[in-house]
Amino acid sequence: MKKNCIVAQSGGPTAAINASLAGIIKGITDSDCFNLIYGAVHGIQGVLREHFLDLTKSTPEFIEALKITPAMYLGSCRFKLPGMAEDVTLYKEIFKVFDKMNIGAFFYIGGNDSMDTVDKLSAYADSIGSDIKIAGVPKTIDNDLVCTDHTPGFGSAAKYIAGSIREIAYDTYIYDVESVTIVEIMGRDAGWLTAASVLARNPKNPAPHLIYLPEAAFDEEAFLSDIKHLLHTHQNIIVAVSEGIHDADGVYLSATSAAADKFGHAQLSGAGKYLEQLVKNRLGIKVRSVEVNVLQRCAGHMASKADLDESFALGMKAVSLVLDGKTGFMTTLNRTGNSPYSYELSSVPVCDVANKAKAVPLNWINNEKNNVTDEMTEYLAPLVLGEVSIEYEAGVPKYLDISHLL
Amino acid sequence: MKKNCIVAQSGGPTAAINASLAGIIKGITDSDCFNLIYGAVHGIQGVLREHFLDLTKSTPEFIEALKITPAMYLGSCRFKLPGMAEDVTLYKEIFKVFDKMNIGAFFYIGGNDSMDTVDKLSAYADSIGSDIKIAGVPKTIDNDLVCTDHTPGFGSAAKYIAGSIREIAYDTYIYDVESVTIVEIMGRDAGWLTAASVLARNPKNPAPHLIYLPEAAFDEEAFLSDIKHLLHTHQNIIVAVSEGIHDADGVYLSATSAAADKFGHAQLSGAGKYLEQLVKNRLGIKVRSVEVNVLQRCAGHMASKADLDESFALGMKAVSLVLDGKTGFMTTLNRTGNSPYSYELSSVPVCDVANKAKAVPLNWINNEKNNVTDEMTEYLAPLVLGEVSIEYEAGVPKYLDISHLL
Repeated sequence: MKKNCIVAQSGGPTAAINASLAGIIKGITDSDCFNLIYGAVHGIQGVLREHFLDLTKSTPEFIEALKITPAMYLGSCRFKLPGMAEDVTLYKEIFKVFDKMNIGAFFYIGGNDSMDTVDKLSAYADSIGSDIKIAGVPKTIDNDLVCTDHTPGFGSAAKYIAGSIREIAYDTYIYDVESVTIVEIMGRDAGWLTAASVLARNPKNPAPHLIYLPEAAFDEEAFLSDIKHLLHTHQNIIVAVSEGIHDADGVYLSATSAAADKFGHAQLSGAGKYLEQLVKNRLGIKVRSVEVNVLQRCAGHMASKADLDESFALGMKAVSLVLDGKTGFMTTLNRTGNSPYSYELSSVPVCDVANKAKAVPLNWINNEKNNVTDEMTEYLAPLVLGEVSIEYEAGVPKYLDISHLL
Repeated sequence: MKKNCIVAQSGGPTAAINASLAGIIKGITDSDCFNLIYGAVHGIQGVLREHFLDLTKSTPEFIEALKITPAMYLGSCRFKLPGMAEDVTLYKEIFKVFDKMNIGAFFYIGGNDSMDTVDKLSAYADSIGSDIKIAGVPKTIDNDLVCTDHTPGFGSAAKYIAGSIREIAYDTYIYDVESVTIVEIMGRDAGWLTAASVLARNPKNPAPHLIYLPEAAFDEEAFLSDIKHLLHTHQNIIVAVSEGIHDADGVYLSATSAAADKFGHAQLSGAGKYLEQLVKNRLGIKVRSVEVNVLQRCAGHMASKADLDESFALGMKAVSLVLDGKTGFMTTLNRTGNSPYSYELSSVPVCDVANKAKAVPLNWINNEKNNVTDEMTEYLAPLVLGEVSIEYEAGVPKYLDISHLL
C-alpha cells in the first residue's frame, strides 16, 4: 500500500513559495507514488496540531493558480525545534503523527530556520531508524542560503525592488529642486535585495545613484560626502540602503528601535528614517525616506517568471529525489552559464545549509562601498526576467482563496 | 498664419498626467489648428524661463508611450502666482513670452493649485483683452477637485492601493498569531484614496477590516475598541488610515511631525507609526505599520486603464473646447450611469474649481466612522477597471526617457 506524504511552508512569505508547493504537488501527482497529499497548516506546528488540508485532488487549474499566488497557501510559523539532546518530546510527537498518518515523506519549504528543522528531523529519523524521507526546498527573499546559486522568492522581490526604484526615481525627477530620496530595503545581514536596486538603472536613468549594503561598514561622513559630491552633477539623488546597515563597530543605524525575535535576529526598522534626519540636519536639503516594507516580499502582481518557474522546478526536484530514496537534503540550483543563462538542479545535505548565511562577496561591492560591481549586475540580471500573467477581478489582482487561514 | 501653443504640467505626479498630455498633443495634431506645440518644462516656471521642448513632431508611437509613462514628462513645479492686485509683474512676463512666441493657447494639467494659476491667467488675459485661450485639465490622486465626478490619476492610485492592500493582507494572514497591520495612505484632507482600500475586499478577503478617513474625527478610544472587538472573530486585522486623520479638535495624529509647504498645507507623516505605537502600548499585540508612500501615485505598472483612457480623453476635450473659442475652463467628467458605467465630458469655468476641495460626503462613511458605505464602493468600482499593458526591458518596467529633466 502506498504511503502518504506531508508538505508544509515556514518562515516569511514570498511571491514564489507557493510555486514550490505547486511543484511538489505536481511532482507527487505525476509520479503517483504517494496515496494522500496532506498540507500541514502553519508549518511544523500544523503537524503537531494535526491540522491538515487534503491536497490530493489538486487540479491542474489549482496548481497553476497556486503557482502565481503570493504569500503562503498553507500558512507559516516561526518555530524552532529544540535540539534533540535538549528535549526529544516534540520529535516523538511529530513522528507519532507521521506514523499514525502513514507518512512516507515530509517536504518543508522555507529559509534558514526551516532548513534547521529539516536537518533536525532527518537526524532524528536516522537516530530512530525511521525511513521517512525529510526534504527541504529553499525559499527566502534575502537570498542568503549557502550551496545554491540563489533562492526562490529572491528574483521576484528583486524585480519588485528594481521596478519600484525606477518608478520612485521618475516620481522624484519631476521637481527642479535638489533632493535626496532614501529607499530602505529588507535584508538584515545580507545585501542581495538592496543590490538588486541596481537593475533599476538604464542608460537614461542613473538611479539609484548610491547603494549601501550591510556587508560593508557604513560611514556617515563618507555617505554625506558622497551626496555632496553627487549634487554637483545631479539634482535628484536616489539612495538604496539595506535595513541592516551598521557602522564599523557593528552598531545598526536603526539600533535604537531594535528588538530581537525568537531566533535572536534583531528586528530592525528605521535606517531610512535615520538617514533622512541626518541629511536634513547636516545638508539642509529636501529629503524623504521610503520604506518599501512588506510589499517587496509578496507583490505577486510583479513576480519574476524566471523565479516562479525555478521555484516550481525545485519543488518537483525534491519529489524526484525522495523517490530516489534521498533524505535530509535541500534542493539547489547551480548556475551553469550567464549568456545564455542556464542552470542545473541538484541537492546538498541540509546540514551543509542550516544555520549558515551567504553574504554578498566584498569584491562585488566597489571600493568606495557605495555601489555594486558589474559582476553583481551580471549575477542579478537573469533572475528578474519575464513577467507573469495574473488575473484581475474588478480591477484588483485575483489570487487563490486563502480564507482557510483566517 | 497659425498660432503656436504651450502645454505644461504642475503639482504632484500621477500615473495618468502624461496620458492627459498625450491627449492634448493628439487633439492638437489631429485638428491641425496650431503650428508648433511647445512643452514648458517645470510648469509655468518653464514659461518664465522660456525652457521648452518641441512636441510638434510627436509620433503616434511617442503618444502611446507617453500615455502609459508615470510621473511628469514635462516636469513639475510648485509655484503659486501672486494675486494680480498684489503684483502684476509675473503676469506681464508670462504674456510677453506668449506674445513673443505667437501663442494662441496655454494648456495646464494639474490639481487645485494649478487651477488657481489657470484662473488667474485667464482673468489677466481678459483684463488686457488678450485672446489667448487658457485651458485647465484636472489631475490629482487625491480626487478632491469639485465640479468633476472624479479626477485623472485617482483611478490608478486607487487601483494600486486596492491591489497593495490585498497583497499586504495575504502577507499578514499566514501567521497564526494575533496581529494588527496599519496601512497609511495619502490624502491630507480628503479620504477618497483611503476609501479605495475597500476595493481590496472580496467575499473571501475581509481586509481592510477598518477604514478611517479624515472627514470624520478620529477617536483613539473608539479605534482601540474597534480592534478589540474584531479580535474576537479575526486573527489578523488590516486597518487603512488616511495620513490626515485628526481628532475632534482638528489636531492631526501626526501633528508632532507637521510642517507647512508653500501653499500652507501641513506636510504630514506618521499617522500609521503613531497608531502602531498606540496599539503596541495599549493592546500589547503584534503590530506593524506600512506607509505606502510615493509608490501609490506613480506606479505605472499597475495603472487603471479606465483612468488612462479618461485622462487622455480629458486632454483631447480641452483642445476641442479651445478650438470652439472657450477659455478659462477646466475639463470635467460627468458620470451618467453606473451599470454600465458611462460618462460625458464637459467643462466648467475654472473659477468654480480653483482653491476649492471636495471632501468625502459624510453619508458615505458609516455611523461608527470605521468603514465606508456601499454607495462609496459603487462610486469607486468603475474607476480601477482594466489593466494597461506595459513593456518591460530586462525585467523592469520600461517608460519614456525623461533624462531631459535630469
